[in-house]
Amino acid sequence: MAIFVASRRLSSGSMTAKSFLAESLRYTTSFRLHTTSYREERDTFGPIRVPSDKLWGAQTQRSLQNFDIGGERERMPEPIIRAFGILKKCAAKVNVEYGLDPSIGKAIMQAAQEVAEGKLNDHFPLVVWQTGSGTQSNMNANEVIANRAAEILGHKRGEKFVHPNDHVNRSQSSNDTFPTVMHIAAAMEINSRLIPNMKQLHTTLNSKSVEFKDIVKIGRTHTQDATPLTLGQEFSGYTTQVKYGIDRVSCTLPRMYQLAQGGTAVGTGLNTKKGFDVKIAAAVAEETNLPFVTAENKFEALAAHDAFVETSGALNTIAASLMKVANDIRFLGSGPRCGLGELILPENEPGSSIMPGKVNPTQCEALTMVCAQVMGNHVAVTVGGSNGHFELNVFKPMIASNLLHSLRLIGDASASFEKNCVRGIQANKERISKLLHESLMLVTSLNPKIGYDNAASVAKTAHKEGCTLREAALKLGVLTSEEFDKLVVPESMIGPSD
Amino acid sequence: MAIFVASRRLSSGSMTAKSFLAESLRYTTSFRLHTTSYREERDTFGPIRVPSDKLWGAQTQRSLQNFDIGGERERMPEPIIRAFGILKKCAAKVNVEYGLDPSIGKAIMQAAQEVAEGKLNDHFPLVVWQTGSGTQSNMNANEVIANRAAEILGHKRGEKFVHPNDHVNRSQSSNDTFPTVMHIAAAMEINSRLIPNMKQLHTTLNSKSVEFKDIVKIGRTHTQDATPLTLGQEFSGYTTQVKYGIDRVSCTLPRMYQLAQGGTAVGTGLNTKKGFDVKIAAAVAEETNLPFVTAENKFEALAAHDAFVETSGALNTIAASLMKVANDIRFLGSGPRCGLGELILPENEPGSSIMPGKVNPTQCEALTMVCAQVMGNHVAVTVGGSNGHFELNVFKPMIASNLLHSLRLIGDASASFEKNCVRGIQANKERISKLLHESLMLVTSLNPKIGYDNAASVAKTAHKEGCTLREAALKLGVLTSEEFDKLVVPESMIGPSD
Amino acid sequence: MAIFVASRRLSSGSMTAKSFLAESLRYTTSFRLHTTSYREERDTFGPIRVPSDKLWGAQTQRSLQNFDIGGERERMPEPIIRAFGILKKCAAKVNVEYGLDPSIGKAIMQAAQEVAEGKLNDHFPLVVWQTGSGTQSNMNANEVIANRAAEILGHKRGEKFVHPNDHVNRSQSSNDTFPTVMHIAAAMEINSRLIPNMKQLHTTLNSKSVEFKDIVKIGRTHTQDATPLTLGQEFSGYTTQVKYGIDRVSCTLPRMYQLAQGGTAVGTGLNTKKGFDVKIAAAVAEETNLPFVTAENKFEALAAHDAFVETSGALNTIAASLMKVANDIRFLGSGPRCGLGELILPENEPGSSIMPGKVNPTQCEALTMVCAQVMGNHVAVTVGGSNGHFELNVFKPMIASNLLHSLRLIGDASASFEKNCVRGIQANKERISKLLHESLMLVTSLNPKIGYDNAASVAKTAHKEGCTLREAALKLGVLTSEEFDKLVVPESMIGPSD
Amino acid sequence: MAIFVASRRLSSGSMTAKSFLAESLRYTTSFRLHTTSYREERDTFGPIRVPSDKLWGAQTQRSLQNFDIGGERERMPEPIIRAFGILKKCAAKVNVEYGLDPSIGKAIMQAAQEVAEGKLNDHFPLVVWQTGSGTQSNMNANEVIANRAAEILGHKRGEKFVHPNDHVNRSQSSNDTFPTVMHIAAAMEINSRLIPNMKQLHTTLNSKSVEFKDIVKIGRTHTQDATPLTLGQEFSGYTTQVKYGIDRVSCTLPRMYQLAQGGTAVGTGLNTKKGFDVKIAAAVAEETNLPFVTAENKFEALAAHDAFVETSGALNTIAASLMKVANDIRFLGSGPRCGLGELILPENEPGSSIMPGKVNPTQCEALTMVCAQVMGNHVAVTVGGSNGHFELNVFKPMIASNLLHSLRLIGDASASFEKNCVRGIQANKERISKLLHESLMLVTSLNPKIGYDNAASVAKTAHKEGCTLREAALKLGVLTSEEFDKLVVPESMIGPSD
Repeated sequence: MAIFVASRRLSSGSMTAKSFLAESLRYTTSFRLHTTSYREERDTFGPIRVPSDKLWGAQTQRSLQNFDIGGERERMPEPIIRAFGILKKCAAKVNVEYGLDPSIGKAIMQAAQEVAEGKLNDHFPLVVWQTGSGTQSNMNANEVIANRAAEILGHKRGEKFVHPNDHVNRSQSSNDTFPTVMHIAAAMEINSRLIPNMKQLHTTLNSKSVEFKDIVKIGRTHTQDATPLTLGQEFSGYTTQVKYGIDRVSCTLPRMYQLAQGGTAVGTGLNTKKGFDVKIAAAVAEETNLPFVTAENKFEALAAHDAFVETSGALNTIAASLMKVANDIRFLGSGPRCGLGELILPENEPGSSIMPGKVNPTQCEALTMVCAQVMGNHVAVTVGGSNGHFELNVFKPMIASNLLHSLRLIGDASASFEKNCVRGIQANKERISKLLHESLMLVTSLNPKIGYDNAASVAKTAHKEGCTLREAALKLGVLTSEEFDKLVVPESMIGPSD
Repeated sequence: MAIFVASRRLSSGSMTAKSFLAESLRYTTSFRLHTTSYREERDTFGPIRVPSDKLWGAQTQRSLQNFDIGGERERMPEPIIRAFGILKKCAAKVNVEYGLDPSIGKAIMQAAQEVAEGKLNDHFPLVVWQTGSGTQSNMNANEVIANRAAEILGHKRGEKFVHPNDHVNRSQSSNDTFPTVMHIAAAMEINSRLIPNMKQLHTTLNSKSVEFKDIVKIGRTHTQDATPLTLGQEFSGYTTQVKYGIDRVSCTLPRMYQLAQGGTAVGTGLNTKKGFDVKIAAAVAEETNLPFVTAENKFEALAAHDAFVETSGALNTIAASLMKVANDIRFLGSGPRCGLGELILPENEPGSSIMPGKVNPTQCEALTMVCAQVMGNHVAVTVGGSNGHFELNVFKPMIASNLLHSLRLIGDASASFEKNCVRGIQANKERISKLLHESLMLVTSLNPKIGYDNAASVAKTAHKEGCTLREAALKLGVLTSEEFDKLVVPESMIGPSD
Repeated sequence: MAIFVASRRLSSGSMTAKSFLAESLRYTTSFRLHTTSYREERDTFGPIRVPSDKLWGAQTQRSLQNFDIGGERERMPEPIIRAFGILKKCAAKVNVEYGLDPSIGKAIMQAAQEVAEGKLNDHFPLVVWQTGSGTQSNMNANEVIANRAAEILGHKRGEKFVHPNDHVNRSQSSNDTFPTVMHIAAAMEINSRLIPNMKQLHTTLNSKSVEFKDIVKIGRTHTQDATPLTLGQEFSGYTTQVKYGIDRVSCTLPRMYQLAQGGTAVGTGLNTKKGFDVKIAAAVAEETNLPFVTAENKFEALAAHDAFVETSGALNTIAASLMKVANDIRFLGSGPRCGLGELILPENEPGSSIMPGKVNPTQCEALTMVCAQVMGNHVAVTVGGSNGHFELNVFKPMIASNLLHSLRLIGDASASFEKNCVRGIQANKERISKLLHESLMLVTSLNPKIGYDNAASVAKTAHKEGCTLREAALKLGVLTSEEFDKLVVPESMIGPSD
Repeated sequence: MAIFVASRRLSSGSMTAKSFLAESLRYTTSFRLHTTSYREERDTFGPIRVPSDKLWGAQTQRSLQNFDIGGERERMPEPIIRAFGILKKCAAKVNVEYGLDPSIGKAIMQAAQEVAEGKLNDHFPLVVWQTGSGTQSNMNANEVIANRAAEILGHKRGEKFVHPNDHVNRSQSSNDTFPTVMHIAAAMEINSRLIPNMKQLHTTLNSKSVEFKDIVKIGRTHTQDATPLTLGQEFSGYTTQVKYGIDRVSCTLPRMYQLAQGGTAVGTGLNTKKGFDVKIAAAVAEETNLPFVTAENKFEALAAHDAFVETSGALNTIAASLMKVANDIRFLGSGPRCGLGELILPENEPGSSIMPGKVNPTQCEALTMVCAQVMGNHVAVTVGGSNGHFELNVFKPMIASNLLHSLRLIGDASASFEKNCVRGIQANKERISKLLHESLMLVTSLNPKIGYDNAASVAKTAHKEGCTLREAALKLGVLTSEEFDKLVVPESMIGPSD
């Protein structure tokens, strides 16, 4: 960095795009160079230097060097790393049953637990843009856990007292572990983040629907004035959308709970023992309290990720729902003087230093941006999901990354929207009432009394002269003031008649 | 047309792009001009001329003139027209219970039945690209049925003896009828076309999986040689994908069976009677033998089309599945000499007049094109579904058109693929066996006997010298011929060990 | 049809989904069965019966039977058929130079001209969902032109006096003709429909921008009230978007004008003569008055359709632009009483029989639906474009169909929107002025005079008490009435200061 | 963290999804809690505590608390932060010309330069999912630069000696600065990363095309054997695709070089001086060595981001191209024994510890995953781009984030693919030759000598009996061995004839 700074004095000035690149590339890779001390690790390609303070081994290091794509921000999502911890712990547990040395098994379980808890995140440097099977991240997990387990047992890193392949990866292949951690990570995010947050949003929307149940307001179709409804009815539509969203994602879970583990390289289960698949699914279920089972067909489970495309489709639907809800809320809250102004949204930050009353609907904006992102992520998942070949789909890390991204964003944004926006929404009753009573469509209720033609005349007169229906009716002499008030009652226009 | 022909003699020659447009526009609109005789119809905008031989009325005619977009090919999909027939028949039936004149009701039912049967398709000229509520198509249905019912009762077209609004559209609004016909049409296409065809495809794939259960073949991961599996196992993956596809779309049906009818203009049900919504859903259910119910929340049912986005998401998943299956089949059938050549696909048409044995996998091609289309249609549905405002989503015809397009294409293409491709697939056993036994990865089974290092030497020697594993093993003197044959048995590599 | 009708009496009632399918399938294929008379045609698969009144031959007939997908509506788009006419005419012309019998050449040119003019459309029954190279449609063109040319020369259909392959398809392969007609069709649609219609829309928007140049109105950011601008400035944004849209699609034309013809089967040009490619591009250029040239690299031209993905991307951008413009216009025209109401949109059809002044912005709705469709079509094109393998992309008909669909829809909808909406838009000056002067943000201009703190007090008071800024300022005693009127002048807030 | 660890002993075991969430949320926000020391900052909402070691102020802090969406990984992309540095430096320079105190101006320029160099990245904690105008990130930049400039001038943080709004943001609005930094960031990434890396890829592909120019190989269409071409010709197709990709993105630059700066809040330029827009664009151009100009129409520049949708469309096309190229290369390199095996791809890491010669085409996999991501990002950009309203599009940070993501990924992955794959590709000449000479389609060249029927017999015999064409021809006695060898010369089948 020093060189760059020296060469770039304020006085000297202009930066070229090219010099920026040089800087930027230096920056990108710099995190790998902090270390001044290295140890040697080996794989079948031979020896390679690895930073001494890192637990990873040779294959991780090679991937780091061969896939300089996207920078640190593109690292494998944390839920995948944690799911690797869970899976490797369960695998050790089951492998002990099948003959793995118990002391090694126990050390692996302890190390894997640390991975599951996120304590070793710094030792997972690989990005999503690697081999499409996720093999390198599987080896990263194997290497880190092996080195850490060896340390627990009093051995040094790199000596392979605990072996990444023979011990940690025993009875496994990247081809079945990676799909397995994909499913574990997604199912956990759905159950621990997405659904709880959507349920909270549903509860709050529903309470608003109840709170607003007696506020009669103008309806709008085609963005144009229409017959009235209550603000509570309007919010009940949003409530229903969120409720169905929860149903939608829940419907996809039976296929998400199926684990590929036990299929090994191509789905046949070569190099595992009979029953291994069932046992490991049971262990993961116990560890996570979620009803995971072994996949009915392991060939499908490795070669396709339809379950991810499906769940992403459910999120895409939720995104469409929330986009609608957030758009409505920002338009209903538009103003303060020149918009619709029916809702008062909470003020969370200065909208402007000049205009009091200007509340930018920033939570709606964050949420709708999230919705657009989820729609895009869905296309990426679909393209990846459709491009598997033969016994393996090799778009796994990208598919996983996008679905987890969508889950996180919808989950977090739903919570933020609920807490910082919906919860504080107030009805601007005065404004709502004013608009309702100015509306020309209330004339509808005059039809039975004065006939369609007279009613139409009233409405047309009001429109043309910019007056109220009441004024027009009196002017035309078709009704008395009392008659008008008795007939034009928006409150009786909000449901079917008896 | 005559004028055009006269002005465009072969000798005169070159066509400019501009003259083509003129021609093309003339062609597009010509279908409206065949008629030489007209009658007058009226709406609140006044009188308008309508072709005498057509049953439609003023509002249809206006739409035809105001929305000259896309040409005849863009007409409202036939399943929507037929669903209008079903709905209007049911509405008349229920309206008679609520006081509609029974003789008029009966005539409407008879006319609506004709629409439901597709007999009056020529009287539905409107395109998808009209008002976003589908109002104009609802009026088209009302007008055609009213005129036809009037004829049945001995009256003339255009006289409104049976009134399109007061009689045919009684207790209805475009805003609830159009979503209702969307759901009827989609649910019928799913049940009568999509699911039966996918089930047939599933059955045939499954029978192939059984037929091929003893054929051991090379597996491929990363498109590279891997451990073996049976061809039956490979097909079992496809079978499972199709089975889950049926599950996926079935999971969305509970929300598709909810009908908006009874919500009228904004969801409140203004101008209907209590109970109308439940009765009409029951009537539609009886008429179609499908379990339709009235929508739990009519505001959601008008303002959003999440159910369509959701079902489209299921189709998108099926498209990803079928893309994978069809890609595999065309690659496994590639050749005849220079490809993988493991499958023999049925020859349906000349691939080339020169190369015998060249079978173009045309059914795979049609199917994968359909899959790409469905993925695109899904995005259109999503964009439309997310853009509703307030009490009404006004992307209805576009959303309906795309989902029905996808349903039709997946349904038809699955049938075509099953009948013209999958059913006739044969295994090229000789080729499969040859590839399997040439494969270097069978060396894996030598590990327990001669150790990893020796096994690796065998494989490396074979790769370097281009010989078989057997030859390499004998050359290196690590095994006898008998030992080799006893150990290297692909048939025992296709499952977990005991 | 008779059977169906007999079995489905009104009294008997309910239709099952299944019976509908039977009906629907019968309907779908019925158009092939009208004919009662047949002749025999042959290809290398042997003889096959073809309707006597049709000009197509054996290969077309086989495709018709093997690809029963989607029904008549899915037929190859007309611009492709016409482009085949143009190409085959030009090919005959050039082939005569290379030795084709001139009398046969002339007959082919005449027959091809009829195809180019759309006169033989009924003889092109094949759907998009066929072989992915479009071979079957190329053979359809060859067969129809051969039979028609034979008739011109006094011979009978089916006798192959003029041979579909040897004469009409001479020096050509489906693999180069189909990409060629794709490019011809798209370039013609762009030049004859899309660009002229967008230019007209641009002109009209621009004239509105000029017409509205002195109308100062409230600006809106985040959908909230902001500082003012003129309505003309607002429209100038739309004008610029459309102008850049034309630029965007024009930028893609250099690659669209490159023709694959001359590459034959794999791009090498086997079986053509040197110079054929250049000559035929020149002939097409002359015939169409568009600057077509032979593709720089024929391998790219057959194996990829990046040019289509690119142009589709330009249309996708235009769709995003028009979605924005149409959304603004419908919101600015919302009301008549309870919306923004700044624009008065033309009334084209009854919005409602009750509410005068209710104008549904139906042209905006049709246009935004078109935009959503174009975004979806773009994804289909992208998926197809990315899935080519080796020497040939086999998603050609799907890619062509979607781009032509988008071109037609954007072209037609732009014209409809211009003619039936934009042209008639009026400013509601009274409403605009009222909103502008009620706005609190005009307080900004008081800052220099009374300081930020006092200005903020004025605004806050006005907001809290629901009064005007003027009233608040006077009440607080910070300004006289005259001073206020001199300082608060929206007309001087619409540009940078000197 | 300690609490969590204590409560989660290995022995205690199972983790519930819920406890994971708690942990995960704690983790997410923990980075904000490291600090134990705070100072007070203020905005119009009042005082708020900010970590003492951070340069940001009150508005940044508020956003951090109100938008807890996605975690640190979702922070505003670094190129945006750096572009803010460039812009604020240029703004200070121009503002000095318009009267800003030169000593304050100079300090701002120095602080902004540090931002531009990435030195203050840690002081930009805000995520993409904030207000849709990017206001909070603009204020983040203003606050950081103001505090840093104040320090440079010997004042304390938080005292506003240099004011974030009055000094740093002078003559600017978030509504024009954010679009401006979007354009600066994207244009720099295009010029410094995307285009250079694509050019390098083009150069290497082209050199391979030259290297392979004499290697004749089998062509493949429909994945089936076809007529021959050279491997160099095949690579020339890829080369052309990449070259056109560079052209495509370059075509979009004229609109990317237009800067919104000077439009302020709604595009009118209120609160700037005449000429400010032109001067600042010139300053940015000088600073970056890129030809930025002021936007022709500021209303379009704020309210729409069509330029981003357009450039994203160019990247989408490049993604389709690279997907095709990478797919071809992995299939052509498939094997080593049971695939096509025509290419030998470089081995970069262990594919498997058992199978020598197994090279997983991992660079192809990373690249194709990137392509899928770019296609998805493109849809997100399109959805965001189409959803602007009135004077401001409020999907800005999402749109920016996705385009920059795509640019980075395509740029980096192209470099990785070039360096780690394409550069080392070798032709497997033996295998290529073997496949070529086994091919049946060479029979085509016998047609002129022995006629179509005899040639077909030769091919059919060879296919049926699994022998070579030569063997079949001799067996059938239609040719001598010498004649066959003279006629069947693939090398003369790779171009048009004279």
